[in-house]
Amino acid sequence: MKNSNPLLDDPRFQAEVEIDIAFHDVDSMEVVWHGNYFRYLEIAREKLLRQLGYGYREMREHGHMWPIIDTRVKYSGAVCFEQKIRVVAFLLEYENRLKIGYKLFDVATGKKTTEAWTIQVAVDAAKKEMLFVSPDILFERMGLPR
Amino acid sequence: MKNSNPLLDDPRFQAEVEIDIAFHDVDSMEVVWHGNYFRYLEIAREKLLRQLGYGYREMREHGHMWPIIDTRVKYSGAVCFEQKIRVVAFLLEYENRLKIGYKLFDVATGKKTTEAWTIQVAVDAAKKEMLFVSPDILFERMGLPR
Amino acid sequence: MKNSNPLLDDPRFQAEVEIDIAFHDVDSMEVVWHGNYFRYLEIAREKLLRQLGYGYREMREHGHMWPIIDTRVKYSGAVCFEQKIRVVAFLLEYENRLKIGYKLFDVATGKKTTEAWTIQVAVDAAKKEMLFVSPDILFERMGLPR
Amino acid sequence: MKNSNPLLDDPRFQAEVEIDIAFHDVDSMEVVWHGNYFRYLEIAREKLLRQLGYGYREMREHGHMWPIIDTRVKYSGAVCFEQKIRVVAFLLEYENRLKIGYKLFDVATGKKTTEAWTIQVAVDAAKKEMLFVSPDILFERMGLPR
Repeated sequence: MKNSNPLLDDPRFQAEVEIDIAFHDVDSMEVVWHGNYFRYLEIAREKLLRQLGYGYREMREHGHMWPIIDTRVKYSGAVCFEQKIRVVAFLLEYENRLKIGYKLFDVATGKKTTEAWTIQVAVDAAKKEMLFVSPDILFERMGLPR
Repeated sequence: MKNSNPLLDDPRFQAEVEIDIAFHDVDSMEVVWHGNYFRYLEIAREKLLRQLGYGYREMREHGHMWPIIDTRVKYSGAVCFEQKIRVVAFLLEYENRLKIGYKLFDVATGKKTTEAWTIQVAVDAAKKEMLFVSPDILFERMGLPR
Repeated sequence: MKNSNPLLDDPRFQAEVEIDIAFHDVDSMEVVWHGNYFRYLEIAREKLLRQLGYGYREMREHGHMWPIIDTRVKYSGAVCFEQKIRVVAFLLEYENRLKIGYKLFDVATGKKTTEAWTIQVAVDAAKKEMLFVSPDILFERMGLPR
Repeated sequence: MKNSNPLLDDPRFQAEVEIDIAFHDVDSMEVVWHGNYFRYLEIAREKLLRQLGYGYREMREHGHMWPIIDTRVKYSGAVCFEQKIRVVAFLLEYENRLKIGYKLFDVATGKKTTEAWTIQVAVDAAKKEMLFVSPDILFERMGLPR
């Protein structure tokens, strides 16, 4: 069966990074503290956006900020010190807001440990006004018509 | 109209803290970086759980860990450097898992900036097994029957 | 015997804050991770500088940044989860650079746990040039002659 | 001229890592916040210690903790978002304590941005007692006589 979201079939709209879990990310239960995952998500999101030619620098140069306004993370398996994880980020929505999905896997076993998404909206940096449709530059960089 | 969740009417099951936003919590867009809110939520959650006599130390003494397995945060207003915020944490569910809600307010204006919830489940620390009902000690500390 | 540094005798040039150690600051050895102390130092330093009427906002309004260029921390006693600490910040030098000292104490016992200092230099924000003497505004705010 | 510290001539006692500076590490002055460097130092230190077969896991298995008791960092150049840095960690002392030095370089230009050192001492994990000489296992793993 075909994937219902065509974005998910296009390799331009996915990126992945591998991260070695450091001592400072682990709490006294010896697993990664839940709030630290947002750094991992960001590292994968930055790679995905840079790959589109629309990283934070380009966002800013075009007069936009893209604050995160909503996020969800489901932690199905603990991640421990010295574990290596793969973080996959993939574009889910872009027309009115950027919704990016994430899956985290243990590299050694391939087992999924975590799923997440983040939603960002464009803000006109000069006027400090939220935009209800994504700016032209995002469509251009994605190579997609408005 | 009566609140549909009786937990929300009981002051034992709510706690609040005030936090002054420090320089290190703010990103280059001059607002609190989204992942830092999890520290604020935790400070309020710790206060709520300690108030019930069931903080992390008591959890551990009774042989349980309570990892966070799911979380959502909606950021409706930016929070800036030197802003003072009030974080209110309130119990939403406890029988099979701990679901805690959060509302963040700007202290100066009373305006709500952020809403969130976290879900934790009890894990038997010795057996590393997830429990599908909350342990007796939680009901005892809450003063509620099983 | 009189204190050799007159700054240390003047209450305007000292500030203190109390901090409750949160779960997220503690590592898998169950003590505060060494890098997290820099947040505690900053909270006390911000209070000291605001007390002088020369917080980060005022620095920026007067066209200066004050990056930290050197720091040292000596950890003589571990600090644990739920411990309450007092962080005292005090001005050590100001004419050519800001050198601030810090002492951390366990509130319950009064025992000193940590000592530190940080050195900041003024940078002209527009020219991105380091200043070799502190700007006039700092002397004014301190109520001291050049 | 020969290096006065023979440890510095031995590649076993040095390790390096490259780090891409992420958005969350940068403060509102658009440079890496000074306290975040301690994560970078730790990533390089972990690599060095694992290379010696004496990472945190091995330390613990042999009954020791190695808390950091003293540190110094000199920041000579700012590090910015999306900059790639190389962190070199090298062993400076080991007989009575572990003193590790660090140099950070901008990968693009080779320019040194930061220097640091950390001092750790062995603690008997069971007795919670500090050891005044390093345990045998460290000498063994280093391949050096007592």
